[in-house]
Amino acid sequence: MRHAVVLAGGGGTRLWPASRRARPKQLLALGGRAGESLLAATTRRLCPLVGGERVWVVTAAAQVPAARSAVLPDVPTRNVIGEPAARNTAAAIGLAAVVLFHQDPDAVLGVIPADQHVADEAAFRDTVARAFALAEARSAIVTIGLKPTRPETGYGWLELGEDIEGGGHRVRRFVEKPDRAAAEAYLAGGRHLWNGGMFFLRAARVLDELERHIPATHAALAEIAEALRAGGPAAAGQAASRVYPAVPSVSIDYAVMEKTEEILTLPGDFGWSDIGSWTALADVRPADAAGNVTQGLVVAHDARGNVAVCDEGTLVALLGVDDLVVVQAGNSVLVCPKDRAQDVRDIVRLLEQRKLDPHL
Amino acid sequence: MRHAVVLAGGGGTRLWPASRRARPKQLLALGGRAGESLLAATTRRLCPLVGGERVWVVTAAAQVPAARSAVLPDVPTRNVIGEPAARNTAAAIGLAAVVLFHQDPDAVLGVIPADQHVADEAAFRDTVARAFALAEARSAIVTIGLKPTRPETGYGWLELGEDIEGGGHRVRRFVEKPDRAAAEAYLAGGRHLWNGGMFFLRAARVLDELERHIPATHAALAEIAEALRAGGPAAAGQAASRVYPAVPSVSIDYAVMEKTEEILTLPGDFGWSDIGSWTALADVRPADAAGNVTQGLVVAHDARGNVAVCDEGTLVALLGVDDLVVVQAGNSVLVCPKDRAQDVRDIVRLLEQRKLDPHL
Repeated sequence: MRHAVVLAGGGGTRLWPASRRARPKQLLALGGRAGESLLAATTRRLCPLVGGERVWVVTAAAQVPAARSAVLPDVPTRNVIGEPAARNTAAAIGLAAVVLFHQDPDAVLGVIPADQHVADEAAFRDTVARAFALAEARSAIVTIGLKPTRPETGYGWLELGEDIEGGGHRVRRFVEKPDRAAAEAYLAGGRHLWNGGMFFLRAARVLDELERHIPATHAALAEIAEALRAGGPAAAGQAASRVYPAVPSVSIDYAVMEKTEEILTLPGDFGWSDIGSWTALADVRPADAAGNVTQGLVVAHDARGNVAVCDEGTLVALLGVDDLVVVQAGNSVLVCPKDRAQDVRDIVRLLEQRKLDPHL
Repeated sequence: MRHAVVLAGGGGTRLWPASRRARPKQLLALGGRAGESLLAATTRRLCPLVGGERVWVVTAAAQVPAARSAVLPDVPTRNVIGEPAARNTAAAIGLAAVVLFHQDPDAVLGVIPADQHVADEAAFRDTVARAFALAEARSAIVTIGLKPTRPETGYGWLELGEDIEGGGHRVRRFVEKPDRAAAEAYLAGGRHLWNGGMFFLRAARVLDELERHIPATHAALAEIAEALRAGGPAAAGQAASRVYPAVPSVSIDYAVMEKTEEILTLPGDFGWSDIGSWTALADVRPADAAGNVTQGLVVAHDARGNVAVCDEGTLVALLGVDDLVVVQAGNSVLVCPKDRAQDVRDIVRLLEQRKLDPHL
């Protein structure tokens, strides 16, 4: 059976001050339907494809209650799996594979990050259905390669290899965050796509790949699997709490995908954005005549090209400023130039150092 | 007897969003003792000079309760006089003169704007005492001329005439808001001082000057005076409500001072600022090593020369921005370059047009 595994483990410090420890990026309502969080939107898009009872969410243990509230009612609460510690995507996908393989040895996983925006939902569902089919038909690892719209240096890219039957391609190689010149060449050349972190493969294959590339992770997961088999979910949870701290923190891209031969990609073009920083709000909301992209009550006077966001009930007034990011969220306000939007995480680090916890 | 008349009628729209309809500039705690409003500080400085029972405040009727709370306890509540409508300084001073002349025909008024900062309070008190003495000795109109520290184009200036006995000068003329070149020449020449709006003269003289220069105002005040004589304060209040709407809205500087011969000035040098806009916060608070002037919890990273203000409990983070004004107050946030600080009133006008009353 097909299962959707939604990864909801990210912190999203570049979206501070909206993104906080207690309300990370995937719980924010950014750009989609009014009031709908990214996680809610992602699970909503997947339910019609695989059925609510086969939509899974992997998140931090502390986020489980919030995630359970965010997903559609037809997703069973047991499908929201809490990780005892944040150990990046390889461990999160491995944990989901253990749970799914236990109940369905033929399970095929569609791994989807929670924190993404999709403009064309019909095209998204069509591509995801085809990616599942390709993964099933060829027992392959299939990734969706997103059609690039700009020379983005903040994303991973993948280079297309030979075509395969059914509209896909082999992946020649992955390139993590290229420099500007390389990204421009990729965009112009038409042989590179963005890696959006969406993977399709059998649960058994996940475990095989982890055994080969990250034996420490595989060994830890094997302990959890054994506890699950012998003692059920509660025992598995105890085992996870015991073994997780020692699990290596690596991404599935770095630890597995970039090292495994024979990855296939299916091009996708559905208005995708990972909303990686405040400037990406322009991917999901239209700009006004002066190029300002706003969410909330913003009054702009002689102000052009800004990104401005505020809570309901608050007003942001921009007077004579250009190309700034101005965000009010809760008890904090951020002001930076758009070209420093990636460095917002430095502010979060500063607040951590200064122990300004009420603002984190 | 000497009386201090504190003018607390200003709106201070350039200090939006801290300054609001319900809490205008003079009620803000800016730069002085922690939590002390400008009005409170102004009356505190004056009480030792004239005695609390001879400190008066003229303010908008709607502001009377807030002003009564702000002044020192030894100022009688009846000394806070509410104007039925805002009609600028000539009317406000005239109304005070009517009340004071009624109870003390020899009253000498020291007119002091509420919204000013004084760094050297001893020097302030010394200068004010000398100004009272000069006004009494020569039955003159005396203004305090402030030693300029920069070529400020936002202030009125006065040009010194011949010296008089006792350290004062005749005023040759007033210059309202000179251009930059003129202001620089005034600063360099040493013959010009800032007009801080502090005037000392007999109550009877106020009424004479108004009769000569603004007969409509004088006629309205005469009705109030007659009601006060015949029916007491309640009758006077009713008369004021009736006649005030038709009173011309003009400043005492423009309507009287610039047209009357024989004004004297006493130079003052006590670290004065009218905190006319957000950039003036630098007059009353020290800058940090990066030139940022802040009030509240502000974290600056690669940010220089900014003015940043926020409420208690809020944090403002500045990343990679220079020479901006960033103010969070209540439900509103302002961002503008320092050189647009005078134009903040345009934002207030926009909010009025858009009827965004919760933010005004």
